[in-house]
Amino acid sequence: MMSHSSEPLTCARPSDAAVGAVVTTLSERFGNRAATGQAVREQHGHTRTYLVTQAPDIVVWPQTTEEVAEIVTLCAAHKMPIIPFGTGTSLEGHVNAPIGGVCIDLSQMNTIVAIHAEDLDCVVGPGVTRKMLNETLRDQGLFFPIDPGADASIGGMVATRASGTNAVRYGTMKDNVLSLTVVTPDGRIVKTGSRAKKSSAGYDLTRLFIGSEGTLGIITEITLKLYGIPEAISGGICSFPTVKAACDAVILTIQSGIPVARIELADQLQVKAFNLYSKLGLPETPVLFVEFHGTENGVKEQAEQFGEIVTEFGGGPFQWTAKPEERTKLWQARHDAYWASFTLRPGAQTVATDVCVPISRLAECVEATQVDIAETGIPAPIVGHVGDGNFHLGLLFFPDDEAEMAKVKPFLERLVKRALAMEGTCTGEHGVGQHKVKYMGMEHSGAALDIMRGIKGVIDPLGIMNPGKMLPAA
Amino acid sequence: MMSHSSEPLTCARPSDAAVGAVVTTLSERFGNRAATGQAVREQHGHTRTYLVTQAPDIVVWPQTTEEVAEIVTLCAAHKMPIIPFGTGTSLEGHVNAPIGGVCIDLSQMNTIVAIHAEDLDCVVGPGVTRKMLNETLRDQGLFFPIDPGADASIGGMVATRASGTNAVRYGTMKDNVLSLTVVTPDGRIVKTGSRAKKSSAGYDLTRLFIGSEGTLGIITEITLKLYGIPEAISGGICSFPTVKAACDAVILTIQSGIPVARIELADQLQVKAFNLYSKLGLPETPVLFVEFHGTENGVKEQAEQFGEIVTEFGGGPFQWTAKPEERTKLWQARHDAYWASFTLRPGAQTVATDVCVPISRLAECVEATQVDIAETGIPAPIVGHVGDGNFHLGLLFFPDDEAEMAKVKPFLERLVKRALAMEGTCTGEHGVGQHKVKYMGMEHSGAALDIMRGIKGVIDPLGIMNPGKMLPAA
Repeated sequence: MMSHSSEPLTCARPSDAAVGAVVTTLSERFGNRAATGQAVREQHGHTRTYLVTQAPDIVVWPQTTEEVAEIVTLCAAHKMPIIPFGTGTSLEGHVNAPIGGVCIDLSQMNTIVAIHAEDLDCVVGPGVTRKMLNETLRDQGLFFPIDPGADASIGGMVATRASGTNAVRYGTMKDNVLSLTVVTPDGRIVKTGSRAKKSSAGYDLTRLFIGSEGTLGIITEITLKLYGIPEAISGGICSFPTVKAACDAVILTIQSGIPVARIELADQLQVKAFNLYSKLGLPETPVLFVEFHGTENGVKEQAEQFGEIVTEFGGGPFQWTAKPEERTKLWQARHDAYWASFTLRPGAQTVATDVCVPISRLAECVEATQVDIAETGIPAPIVGHVGDGNFHLGLLFFPDDEAEMAKVKPFLERLVKRALAMEGTCTGEHGVGQHKVKYMGMEHSGAALDIMRGIKGVIDPLGIMNPGKMLPAA
Repeated sequence: MMSHSSEPLTCARPSDAAVGAVVTTLSERFGNRAATGQAVREQHGHTRTYLVTQAPDIVVWPQTTEEVAEIVTLCAAHKMPIIPFGTGTSLEGHVNAPIGGVCIDLSQMNTIVAIHAEDLDCVVGPGVTRKMLNETLRDQGLFFPIDPGADASIGGMVATRASGTNAVRYGTMKDNVLSLTVVTPDGRIVKTGSRAKKSSAGYDLTRLFIGSEGTLGIITEITLKLYGIPEAISGGICSFPTVKAACDAVILTIQSGIPVARIELADQLQVKAFNLYSKLGLPETPVLFVEFHGTENGVKEQAEQFGEIVTEFGGGPFQWTAKPEERTKLWQARHDAYWASFTLRPGAQTVATDVCVPISRLAECVEATQVDIAETGIPAPIVGHVGDGNFHLGLLFFPDDEAEMAKVKPFLERLVKRALAMEGTCTGEHGVGQHKVKYMGMEHSGAALDIMRGIKGVIDPLGIMNPGKMLPAA
């Protein structure tokens, strides 16, 4: 086994004849559920970063696992690349088609197959979105907590190991999937687990496919864990003199065993954006948004305990409420962080990225990044899932300004190196996609990458599944 | 790829010359940290079931990751089987050496390398036992919750994906490991992750090694999640007219969002054993042991809510206490279930096993199993981690009674088939080992087993890691 490259592992572009054969066969077989128009193809090879759009040769909309297996079998016979597509809300170039291929859009596989209220689980198609799922669950008093912000598809959330604001209490996708049905690159249908809450029967294939970014197979059905909607929810917002003070308050909150459901940091620049966009009227200092789930007494107690903790660190006053409309306004502002950021620099583009470090290093990492941002001269507000040590920033740059463009990539590389030097990871939840392939060799040893490539090679020997993503070449 | 066999995947016994060379080299290199005496070898190839002892050729006690890598490199050069050993408390024949080989006893790698209180994590050697760890953590107000009953080693708990009484609240080992250091079968040292709470950077190698039962490599260091010791703990015991009533109370408790920390079922026969062994003086009906963690108000509220739920199902009265000595007595009785069971049939041996089903099917599965036990005529008390749908039973049989012995294996197979028919798994937490290899093909499809064997083949091409365990041959 050899060491790693900074270039992505990929396969060869198939011959024009092979591409033509696959496109013709799929067009005939799927009729208006296949499309080769340029606009549709480009929309499916588009990514919300500065990465250029790279369109597939055809987009096809299967409706069943068997149809997915049929498409994959055809592609395998012609060594044709396959790119699975959920809602296209990923941020690191997961759906680009750098050497063309077949985009399998799973949005029509959006059936909620079963809800097992007694077992607190459900079975869904990969095209079900999290909002669609939660609307259906609400009547039964249940919810699915993972919330990456965008109304992403459950299949895409599995594929990128998504998490979001609720992860501090409910975990990430890796903690909330019981079982998957996957079509592997040879066209076989694999069930990775049962509906039992836990199992020690063999290798954890479920967790292997979670976060595999479409490079090992196509997820066609998901069994998810569910939760009862809490009897009561309280939440609020709290200002702090510094990022460090806010982070220290979070550490003590978690150490104290307060089961905080959400705890989100916004830095002073992001608060300015909130004020501009959502009229929050906050002092322009770092803030924490928090939410507590429990019984009525429980959420009151949690909020009071938290209120005492924040004063120890010069924060506060902590204003909290159990009124749904006030909480909703607050969290809508938090969820609009991406859109709000543009108010800081109208006309700019953004590149949104994330890293994650041990929580004890978070303040240091954020503050060093703020200094770096200031030196770069490109505004970049920061928000963080601070309970997990995970933070995001959006660099607001003008792509026509070559001097600015030249600063973006080195800045992003410094950000990743800073996180890695603090025992962190180059991505807490966005995933690798195309953009972070070059950091995989910084984060993982050659031995670890050899195992990943070995697994890829044995499951996808032709290398047709989402080529050019996640793994660096050897 | 082909379909599965009921025989385990294994490698060939190396030549006597190869065995001799390895034994000689290790004896010279490790001195009194290597042993070839029969008693020591047999103790290391012994299992707590009716499976016969199968001793390795030599036992060696490394003290560092580098020493483990050195041993593995030597074994690889001679195609010598390697069996990792923790405390030997696993139940399904994980440490047997069916074709001999080198047993690597990790008990001397028992250093607590670091405790990061702010990050709620720690780094430990694989030979640290859970009780040793918790004694060290207590002064810092921290604890590690996973409790499989035995004072198992953390490395062994990782390797078998252990869980136990606290899993309903804190999850299993798969949920509580941040990162591993593993020596792979080629002697390389692999770090599977960082100390970040979450990551989306590549395949989940951490989860791949958790539950791999020593078949992919040797775990030499573990980064674990920790928790603050709860401010208050309350607990108690509650009788129910039937297993069904107890299970229904558990389902409603969990659906109601009561964050129960432990909720354990014992059937009427196990209660009889508790009365005989621990003098609990309980009515001989099914009972639930429960425990709540939280604030003082919180645990009181949880206990009261639970008390109301149980009356809906004819259970109770629910007697609970926050006094440590009373709780300890109760949980000591629960933990002594294994030993207590022998009071039901003095002189008998036991075969302890587990299955896990969706909680909605648990009562049905337990009751059908009780009928089967009655028909078999061999007493078998049942205890269950009922919040997870996981239950255990110990068949108390006389191994000299051939008629009884003839009934054991068919009974165990019916138990597994019953769980699988209810969308469950052949093992919730004990693992596969030698004993359950034959059920892997019942639980998993040929396609799933082909992926598992493919992974095994690419990481351990010589097949030397714990041969004869977990995976059936193709």
